[in-house]
Amino acid sequence: MTELRTLKVALLGCGNVGAQVARILIDDAGTLAPRTGARLELAGIAVRNLDAEREVDLPRELFTTDAETLVKDADLVIELMGGIEPARSLILSAIQNGASVVTGNKALLAADGPALYEEADKAGVELSYEAAVAGAIPILRPIRDSLSGDRITRVLGIVNGTTNFILDQMDSTGAQFADALAEAQRLGYAEADPTADVEGHDAAAKAAILASLSFHTRFDLEHVYCEGITRVSAADIAAAKEAGFVIKLLAIAEKIGNGDGSEGVSVRVHPTLLPREHPLAAVRGAFNAVFVEAENAGELMFYGQGAGGTPTASAVLGDLVSAARRIVLGGPGRIESTTGHVPALPIDAATTSYYIGLDVADQPGVLAKIAQLFAEHGVSIEIMRQTIHRDADSNVESAELRIVTHRASEAALAATVEAVKGLDVINSVTSVLRVEGA
Amino acid sequence: MTELRTLKVALLGCGNVGAQVARILIDDAGTLAPRTGARLELAGIAVRNLDAEREVDLPRELFTTDAETLVKDADLVIELMGGIEPARSLILSAIQNGASVVTGNKALLAADGPALYEEADKAGVELSYEAAVAGAIPILRPIRDSLSGDRITRVLGIVNGTTNFILDQMDSTGAQFADALAEAQRLGYAEADPTADVEGHDAAAKAAILASLSFHTRFDLEHVYCEGITRVSAADIAAAKEAGFVIKLLAIAEKIGNGDGSEGVSVRVHPTLLPREHPLAAVRGAFNAVFVEAENAGELMFYGQGAGGTPTASAVLGDLVSAARRIVLGGPGRIESTTGHVPALPIDAATTSYYIGLDVADQPGVLAKIAQLFAEHGVSIEIMRQTIHRDADSNVESAELRIVTHRASEAALAATVEAVKGLDVINSVTSVLRVEGA
Repeated sequence: MTELRTLKVALLGCGNVGAQVARILIDDAGTLAPRTGARLELAGIAVRNLDAEREVDLPRELFTTDAETLVKDADLVIELMGGIEPARSLILSAIQNGASVVTGNKALLAADGPALYEEADKAGVELSYEAAVAGAIPILRPIRDSLSGDRITRVLGIVNGTTNFILDQMDSTGAQFADALAEAQRLGYAEADPTADVEGHDAAAKAAILASLSFHTRFDLEHVYCEGITRVSAADIAAAKEAGFVIKLLAIAEKIGNGDGSEGVSVRVHPTLLPREHPLAAVRGAFNAVFVEAENAGELMFYGQGAGGTPTASAVLGDLVSAARRIVLGGPGRIESTTGHVPALPIDAATTSYYIGLDVADQPGVLAKIAQLFAEHGVSIEIMRQTIHRDADSNVESAELRIVTHRASEAALAATVEAVKGLDVINSVTSVLRVEGA
Repeated sequence: MTELRTLKVALLGCGNVGAQVARILIDDAGTLAPRTGARLELAGIAVRNLDAEREVDLPRELFTTDAETLVKDADLVIELMGGIEPARSLILSAIQNGASVVTGNKALLAADGPALYEEADKAGVELSYEAAVAGAIPILRPIRDSLSGDRITRVLGIVNGTTNFILDQMDSTGAQFADALAEAQRLGYAEADPTADVEGHDAAAKAAILASLSFHTRFDLEHVYCEGITRVSAADIAAAKEAGFVIKLLAIAEKIGNGDGSEGVSVRVHPTLLPREHPLAAVRGAFNAVFVEAENAGELMFYGQGAGGTPTASAVLGDLVSAARRIVLGGPGRIESTTGHVPALPIDAATTSYYIGLDVADQPGVLAKIAQLFAEHGVSIEIMRQTIHRDADSNVESAELRIVTHRASEAALAATVEAVKGLDVINSVTSVLRVEGA
């Protein structure tokens, strides 16, 4: 193996996302290095309180309260402190030192993004922030890169898990807003002070970022019309439901013709009725999704977890590895990566559940015989269902048996099916199909 | 405006995707240039037959039958000819001349990808192929870049629109395979010889690409177990439906523990039962979707159009602009792009449909009065629905009126609602909510 260069990573902040980022950098160092083309060394973690309790057990010697010194020596800086200062000054100092920066700080980006982007541009470093919008969902990078040759016309996003959870609760249980909010707080989906979420401020900051990237123009909070969900009543939800709609808090950015040939962009956040068959209507609980309409691509949707330490850490690490590759390779690296070295397995090694349809004799004891045979082959039955048909003319009865198994190997299943075929009570095996996602 | 450098683009092939790529390069030249940091000049289009009919009207002087000469002079080459030769030789010649290459040729990638990647790597150019899997859906780039810091555990993809259309038809109409196939052929979703689609070969080539990127290891067609949909019967679909499942042709790549601490990857294509509540189950018609499970990110789904000239052209252009940015900027460019210059519009400029709930007096003529007032304000009513409640004790009747409008401006709607409030037959306006996606 060739000697890999080492890149020093400074982590600022060790909350629920930061702690997971640190854990992954340490635990997965061996996997990340060949993919990146460099060893990513976690040089230190800047925190306010060295003795605070952490979600993850991390080496004590990594912690420091001296963020300035940590940043000075880093090739890559991850900012997950939140808030405006000292995050802003530390990011600027990192950029001026030639480090690339990854942040999830949407408040800072909404307040002062353009100044930061310009500094990064001048210094020739990357400033990336996939984690700032829709947590784990890759959305900013696809908009920037994959859709760079298209014209986006509209973006509709469920980008706040707290409000989606509350509205979903109201929709499925008929609860009032206050009760659904209390439930969200009990389950940890809403904070003690839920204002930023329920009044739409969090979604508005994300709407500004999505609009800026989608329409290649700077939009900030002052351009975003914002209306939260506190006035949505159980009666509204019930009436919407009856009419075939679901109510979602959407972040919307859309291009609108002004009627005089010119165009503008409307950026807004408000509770919105969506037809139940719309792809976004099926986004339940605290999940996020962004629906993008583009002139050439048509309709696209990106769906996943919008918050949580580990999912958001995935987005941070994606930005980090991409920025590191650029330092090492001067570009994203080839699209093929062959650092995994895992063997391809034959189909016999795959395990799935199976659905098996059998045409069987209608005799007592048939079910027991078949169940016995499955058990002997180590294939566990989850559901077994028999339907009896009687032919009205001949008065002959036949029985159809449908079996869904637990996960089993292809090999075990194939042997079972062979054995079943040999039973005298079996007329035919009508179907064998694999089941996923159950 | 600063003088932009010009990059010469050679287009090989002018079928339904190629023709749209050419159209966009010509029509959107002015939008693409500032985003790219270079003018993308369509230098020529290599075709076999100069006189063939094209879907798009393109300047005749662009066409040539001399692909070799065209490629020699290009900075970027787009290969959309399909098939192995001459596509393979032309791509190799482009790479050796230092050009970056964009292709959608999955057959070639499945047959000879690794050799091409290595050549591109040696020459320091990009070889990208987003269009080869799931058409317009950004999936390869997110897997390579956004998930580069995560560990993918499983990928489930609906990556063939023809078979998804056929299975969806069978599911919704109860049709047999042969009839659904005939319908797909009639509508242009299936080719006259549908073998590559219905036998799963097309999905298998895509499965190999998805598995290779997801698990950082080379997999090719010989590693893919492949079973098509020709043996799926209407009875299978009906039985699956009754049990709460839908049948989809899935491309699956998943990591499996071998029980001895080692791991392998199972890559396979087969008809699969999915629970109806699974996000992939809702992917209807000829749409595609890829469901990705990763250790940190959790569940992600990418949804959109999997085929068609214009959507696939969007993926080709995204690769092209990204490759061009790398030539010009030595990297992907900053994530913020401010080349759009569209103004932010006030909320009054937005148009949506509205849902309005009214508590009205139960008198004859109320509906007419309200409808008249909406009409006067230029707000068109789509649905109007009245429910009468009678209080059992007091015997007093009250009426609830629910209105859904066609698209109207915020300003017109606000004026309408104000006027409605002034009507003597109105007790109260119980809700005003915006409707999207209808």
